[in-house]
Amino acid sequence: MDVYFLGTGAGMPTTKRNVSSIALRLYEERGTFWMFDCGEGTQHQVLRSSLKLSKCEFIFITHLHGDHLFGLPGLLSSRGHQGGTKPLTVFGPPGLGDYMKIVFEVSHTQVPYPLVIKEVDGGVIWSDDTFSVTALPLDHRVPCLGYRIQEKDRPGRLKFELLKEKGIPPGPVYGQLKQGKDVQLPDGEFLFAASVLGESIPGRSVAILGDTRPCDHAVRLARHVNLLVHEATFMEDRVEHAHEFGHSTAKQAARIADRAGVKKLALTHFSSRYKDEEQMDQLLSEAREVFAETYLAEELEAIAVDAE
Amino acid sequence: MDVYFLGTGAGMPTTKRNVSSIALRLYEERGTFWMFDCGEGTQHQVLRSSLKLSKCEFIFITHLHGDHLFGLPGLLSSRGHQGGTKPLTVFGPPGLGDYMKIVFEVSHTQVPYPLVIKEVDGGVIWSDDTFSVTALPLDHRVPCLGYRIQEKDRPGRLKFELLKEKGIPPGPVYGQLKQGKDVQLPDGEFLFAASVLGESIPGRSVAILGDTRPCDHAVRLARHVNLLVHEATFMEDRVEHAHEFGHSTAKQAARIADRAGVKKLALTHFSSRYKDEEQMDQLLSEAREVFAETYLAEELEAIAVDAE
Repeated sequence: MDVYFLGTGAGMPTTKRNVSSIALRLYEERGTFWMFDCGEGTQHQVLRSSLKLSKCEFIFITHLHGDHLFGLPGLLSSRGHQGGTKPLTVFGPPGLGDYMKIVFEVSHTQVPYPLVIKEVDGGVIWSDDTFSVTALPLDHRVPCLGYRIQEKDRPGRLKFELLKEKGIPPGPVYGQLKQGKDVQLPDGEFLFAASVLGESIPGRSVAILGDTRPCDHAVRLARHVNLLVHEATFMEDRVEHAHEFGHSTAKQAARIADRAGVKKLALTHFSSRYKDEEQMDQLLSEAREVFAETYLAEELEAIAVDAE
Repeated sequence: MDVYFLGTGAGMPTTKRNVSSIALRLYEERGTFWMFDCGEGTQHQVLRSSLKLSKCEFIFITHLHGDHLFGLPGLLSSRGHQGGTKPLTVFGPPGLGDYMKIVFEVSHTQVPYPLVIKEVDGGVIWSDDTFSVTALPLDHRVPCLGYRIQEKDRPGRLKFELLKEKGIPPGPVYGQLKQGKDVQLPDGEFLFAASVLGESIPGRSVAILGDTRPCDHAVRLARHVNLLVHEATFMEDRVEHAHEFGHSTAKQAARIADRAGVKKLALTHFSSRYKDEEQMDQLLSEAREVFAETYLAEELEAIAVDAE
């Protein structure tokens, strides 16, 4: 599980950074990736990566500003051309359905896979046995969501020694126990999985937030996550400008990370005004003054979601 | 005046070719450029070129398929961010207005310059003292336009010797005559511009066509143009496939060029199946069998619109 940055710029593309898009790669966990936002040119970035659109399982849109949205119709269309046949659900704020409807109608776009658009405004928006996704509104100029992706706790290590002691030979029973299922042995005895499993392995978590001023919902979504991805459009000298346009500075993002007690903070969504490395170094150091475990998102590079 | 190719691929982007967009550069003639089609990532291609979006005067959309359209909202938005303040008019087939309206509404996009969307279905759609633009419907799966850009004939060379003989000293009168305006001399005599001008200089012309099967309107638009830009999605072995999907082969495009008596043919809109140079060489030679003055459009390269 890692977060792979497809576009780390704000507002409009530059020759160095594309507009917003992030892939949460879940190859080991699910054999898929999830996408967060899809600015124009995201499908071009995907071509430069090892991602295959057919493996994109969900897309989560944070808000409907063009730099987070305008790549969506083309990417969905190309997913079909490239042989994607598995269902895909796009989550996003109200208005997303109307947008997709008229764009696909006008452009006569059809896709050869089941495509579902789900407008959401908060709460647990999706869940299965292994993951859940929670959304909460943030504080931007237009309705904007943050997402928390929570891996569910997994059963602990199977205590083979204990099973051997009990004289239970390796077999399908081991698999069931490993999954946390209680079993009845051939002699009629019930064996409770909990009694032969080590401590359960805590699920990892990531919060990926859309554009926002510092706000309490950001802290709530990010509480104790392994990785928080937060926008940092500006440096501290433009803190008022950031507020006016519904954005955060790097330092403000670091304060959110600190308040939420996250393990690691990745900054992204940098203003196109920051062109050279020196400026980016300064932006990073402003954040690290508050929260040491801060990293800058780089185009087509990943940041791991470590257990600890 | 030249035609500069921003995207020469069909359907979806590849790592080598972007989807459709063409700039007609009129720097000497008007200090501007005009754009034909605007597939996703066109603004990214503009960033890699020396074009400045603020100098884009008109955009002509041939049809509303995504690979010709999906870059439009982002490009219009970025033109504003990059300081574009001069008016811009976008011409295109019916449906373009609805598309732009909902996309700008949903994404809260505003531009700081007068933006006009004009839906057209054919005829002389724009004209001034120096240029006119004619559109005609082509034969694609959806309504699709071709455009002919006609430079108007310019007055010929001023015959200085003749004016000197008549004892007319250089001055503002020369300028008026040069523009083809008749003047009254101080002695009351009328001097007709035509009597002191050489043969008028014929205007140049370009036809830039959208996706199409071979059709009569293509010939009509291209009649005697200095440069015809025609799609050539497939090679001859896929002529039936081309017909089914409303496209042309390279050879069919060459036949149109031949029938229309054009000076030069530029092929573009190549299927992503043609990946290597060998295939492109073959595609070109199939066209050249019919029409020798055929050239392949290349990404971020120009083809001049020569007088002869």
